[in-house]
This record gives sequence, C-alpha cells and structure tokens, in this order.
Amino acid sequence: MRIISADSAAAILDSTFKPLSLVASVSVLVNPPYREPSFRIAEPIFREIDNSFEIIVHEAELCRSLLDKHKANVVHLDMSLGGVSVEDLSPIELMNLRSSKIGRQNILKILPRLRKIAAEIKRLYDIDVLAIGKESIPVRIAELTAGAEAVLYASQKAVSDGTPILLGLPLMCQPRVIGNSIYFHSLIAAEHDIRGYAIDDEGMLGKVKLTETLNPSARGFRAVKITPL
Amino acid sequence: MRIISADSAAAILDSTFKPLSLVASVSVLVNPPYREPSFRIAEPIFREIDNSFEIIVHEAELCRSLLDKHKANVVHLDMSLGGVSVEDLSPIELMNLRSSKIGRQNILKILPRLRKIAAEIKRLYDIDVLAIGKESIPVRIAELTAGAEAVLYASQKAVSDGTPILLGLPLMCQPRVIGNSIYFHSLIAAEHDIRGYAIDDEGMLGKVKLTETLNPSARGFRAVKITPL
Amino acid sequence: MRIISADSAAAILDSTFKPLSLVASVSVLVNPPYREPSFRIAEPIFREIDNSFEIIVHEAELCRSLLDKHKANVVHLDMSLGGVSVEDLSPIELMNLRSSKIGRQNILKILPRLRKIAAEIKRLYDIDVLAIGKESIPVRIAELTAGAEAVLYASQKAVSDGTPILLGLPLMCQPRVIGNSIYFHSLIAAEHDIRGYAIDDEGMLGKVKLTETLNPSARGFRAVKITPL
Repeated sequence: MRIISADSAAAILDSTFKPLSLVASVSVLVNPPYREPSFRIAEPIFREIDNSFEIIVHEAELCRSLLDKHKANVVHLDMSLGGVSVEDLSPIELMNLRSSKIGRQNILKILPRLRKIAAEIKRLYDIDVLAIGKESIPVRIAELTAGAEAVLYASQKAVSDGTPILLGLPLMCQPRVIGNSIYFHSLIAAEHDIRGYAIDDEGMLGKVKLTETLNPSARGFRAVKITPL
Repeated sequence: MRIISADSAAAILDSTFKPLSLVASVSVLVNPPYREPSFRIAEPIFREIDNSFEIIVHEAELCRSLLDKHKANVVHLDMSLGGVSVEDLSPIELMNLRSSKIGRQNILKILPRLRKIAAEIKRLYDIDVLAIGKESIPVRIAELTAGAEAVLYASQKAVSDGTPILLGLPLMCQPRVIGNSIYFHSLIAAEHDIRGYAIDDEGMLGKVKLTETLNPSARGFRAVKITPL
Repeated sequence: MRIISADSAAAILDSTFKPLSLVASVSVLVNPPYREPSFRIAEPIFREIDNSFEIIVHEAELCRSLLDKHKANVVHLDMSLGGVSVEDLSPIELMNLRSSKIGRQNILKILPRLRKIAAEIKRLYDIDVLAIGKESIPVRIAELTAGAEAVLYASQKAVSDGTPILLGLPLMCQPRVIGNSIYFHSLIAAEHDIRGYAIDDEGMLGKVKLTETLNPSARGFRAVKITPL
C-alpha cells in the first residue's frame, strides 16, 4: 500500500516554553515498510497556534498536490476519528463519533471544505481520504518530517532576524544532523526505526548553532534553541 | 515466586492488515527475575478472531497441563480484572468490577468453565488462578512466546499452501532469528530485557523468507510477511 | 530557568511485592537542559505507605530548605493539578479542577499547610510553587534521585538489621552503579537521557549485593533485592 499523509509541526516558543506559532506543514508519500517518507512537499506556515485547526484543510490540499505527482492507494489525515472516510462524514455521523465537544465543533467548521477536497481526490484518483490521525504511521512520519523542515525554516528566520529562536519539537522525537540533512527520529516505544528528514539545500545549518533541551514543564517534549552564528 | 501464565497471539492478516485468524496459544513457566520463559507448551490454533474470547478457557487448560510437569506458586491468566482469583469470581462480584459491558458479558459466558479449571488447579496443586491480564509480566512473556511460535506455525502453513502469509505480531515487539531459534523482544518502554522465543526444530525458518513491516494503520503494531522460498 | 522540585520514592516490599513503607524524600535543583540534578537534599523517611499523601508537605519543606542555599525561578511539586500555583489554590478552586474525589479530599487536608509554605517561599524568594506533578521533568528527576538515595538508605538498614530488603523502584527506571555513585536512569520513552543519582560517601554499596528483578505483577516496575554481604 502506498499512503499519502500530511501534518504540521514544531512551534516557536517564548522563554517559558509557551507555544506561539506553528512553523511547517508537509505532505509525504510513504511506502512499505512505512519507516520514512519516499517523497515530500513542505511549506513554511508560521501561523498562530490558536486557529491551528484550520491547518487540516491546508494539509488536505498538500496531499492533493502530492497526488498530482505521485500515485497512492489512500490518504491519511491528522484527525483522530477512527479511520472513517472524510467524504462519507456527514455532520450527523460526526455527532455519533466519540470525540470531544470542542473537537467536534472545530471539525464542523472545516468539514465542508474537507469533504470537497476528499470528493475531488476521489474523482481524480479514485482513492479515499481517511480521518485516522494518531493511529497512522504515515501521519507520524509526516509529523517528524514537518519537524525537520521546521528546523530549516526557523533557522532561516533566526538568521534573517538576527535573533535566537526556541523551537518546540513534536512529541517524543530527537533531531540529528548528518551531512546536509536533518533527521527527526521518533523516541516513542516501538518507533525506533521511524523517522522524517529534511535536506538543507540552502546551507542554513552551517549558519546556526542548535542546542537541544528538554521542555521542563511538558514531559515527552523537547525543544531546540537555534542561535545565529 | 514461580509463575505459570498463558496467552494467544499473532494474527493472519489480509492485504489491508485486517486480522482474520489467531495462530498460536502457549503456556509458560516464568521464574525470577521474570525475563523469559523457563518452560513452554505451545499449540497451533488458527482460530477465527471473532470468538477469540473463548480462547481464555483453552489457555487455562494449557496452564493446567504445564502444572502437571512443573511446580508453580500462582497462575496468571490474560484477563484484566485487577488480579482477582478466578475461583472466587462469582457473577455478582464480576458486576462490581470495572470492566466494559461487552467484556463482562463475554466473561460471563466462559466463567463456569474457567472456575471449574481454577477449582481443579486449587485442588490438585493448592495454588490460585488470577485474572491479572495486562498487569502481569508472565502474561506478556506468554504473549511474546506465542508470537514466536506463531511464526513457525505460519511458516509451516505458508510452505504447505505454497502462498505467502502476512502475520500480524503482538503489540510492540520485534522478531529476531538467531541460529535455530526465533526471539520476540518487547519494544515496550522498560521491557527491553523481556522476551519470548521458539525453537525451530523442524527447520521451517530455512524454507521461508521473513520480511518485517510496520502496520501503517495501527501504531505500535508490526507484521511479518512470510514467503515460501 | 532554574527549577527546584521534590519527590519521595522507593518502597520496601514484602515477599509478594506488596509495598510497606516509603524510603526517601529529596529536593533537587535542576538547570537547563533539565537532564539531571545540579544540587540535592535527601532524607531517609521509612514512612508507612498509607498516609503517604502527607509527604507532599514535607517535600515542600525540603524545597524551601534547598532555596535557602540555591536560587531558583520556580518550584515544582509532585501534585498533578495542571500546573496551578499552590498559593492561589483555594478550596473552591480545587473543586473546579479535574481530579478524583479521593485525591481532592486528601489535598484539602494538607492544603492549608502547603499554602503557608508557598506563601513563605513567595515572600522570601518571590517565586511560585506549582502543582504540576507528572508533567514536570524536574519532578521526575527528583523521583529518580529519591530512588537512588533510597538504595543507600535501604542498604544501611539491611546491613544494620542483618536481613535482606526487597526495594521497589519508581516507575520505569533502572539502577546502575558506577564507581561510588548509583545512577537511576529513566526507562520511559523519550527520557533516555534523564537520570538521578546518589553518592555513596559511606561505602554502603561495598557491604551489600544488589540483585535486580522485574515486579511480575505490576508491569513497568522493577525491584532490587539488597542482601548484606
């Protein structure tokens, strides 16, 4: 099975580790054995955390863009609704799903746009768009890839602004720079061989110093301080 | 403490990773420091997933069989009811335990047979049978052992059928072939030194190719594709 | 950020792994990148498990003592109330927080004393005392440090009593003796570089044999058998 997924990740933090804005969205194609992305589209977003739910629409659009270039059998979105098909997800059906009230209201707002994209993907490529979220390995790989791309985007911003940036990483992962690539390895149990990565074509990693720290008030989360050299 | 436990594991999957049938049941004797089985009884079952709850009765019988050969201080079954003694578990007491309604109804169906076996074990060996399930390390070791035995049974089936089998493994574990044994190592946090294993007396592992993959739609689960050579 | 936290850990177990008494309380100062303690105060407590909730008051006192010697920006206590400030925590506010009924009643009993200590800390050092509990990395480091100190205290007791002690360790960690120190490494996912330690100034580790075992009936927990030589 060839799976296309998307996610957004990494947050610029203030000095007390409070998240301010989300940095990167990516879509990835993942092939068996589902350990890393085969192809990627990435975009800097630098969007406020508060209305981050809207980002799922953008992520679905990125999946559609990746489908223009690469074949896949199914699309996985970062919405944890048990793997239902987004196209079939009516407002009534949504009410029957177990999800928090707030979550449901947010989904209702974006549902028409999401279903439109899912219908287009169905028509053009005859494949389903699933709201599978945290159960999906390809969504996790998209998250790690977004984290890696975010380090590059945030490095660019830190260099052009001339000020350090504290970048909060996705849950349970750790960056590693190898050559001109930055790898994000999952630290979740049984995900030791899962990773995302970004390629530093513009040589940003040579212009900054990366210092890793744990987030002291949110167990499982780490951050990277990016200091322009 | 010498503990005898039992579990069943590994499922034959269809090409979309949907489980079809359960492959192996085992009973194990586990001694301190509780890292791997000291003795094992294993059986191929190839039973439909749907009525898999019935399997606990068979697992209790396997424990009784192992007790015929080896002494133990207690029996651990794969039912997560907080460690209550099965012999003392009346239908009324069951109602007072926190467990899902469906779970309770399934347990009610098999309770008379389970209590009969527990009573026999009490009479013959003067030890308790506990419904401890997911809190038990020996149950986890039985699960890993069942996974290892299942690879051998499924390999036999793949060779005799002449078709590949996709075998879904227990939660968070990874197989490793060393010599004529197959080890199943736990990948759960703080279980890095826990494992089960099976011995390939009939040389099945030389007749198949094993390819590991992650289950893309169920995080934490892996599968092995078994292809006859 | 410089963070002072406290916790108590390690339980003397009976032969069936049932906890009897809690062994050590510590307060630690943790600096970025929040991987191990920079300074420590430790005390043997050997207190019954049953009224262990009272220990949080003692832990807050230990934090205040450590503040007499070292500057910090905030205090983290092992109460999981979402990071609210203890000084601001009125009984009414407590009722609005999500926590179990029993938990709330226990907190109510100690709240006046806790708030008094928090007010003193605020007045003397102008910093907040947060009820952050399981979300705090410094609390986890205090727990691991308490585990390490507990091995030394329990060794002393085992030697002076002339009988072995079975010591139950904090959740998901593993001791390692290096030179005259005992390190407690976290085994929780994404905490691989977090640890606490104790220094064996009195040479207790040379007078006992430590044997590690898994707790067979409580997954994630290990114990150390301490045998006087």
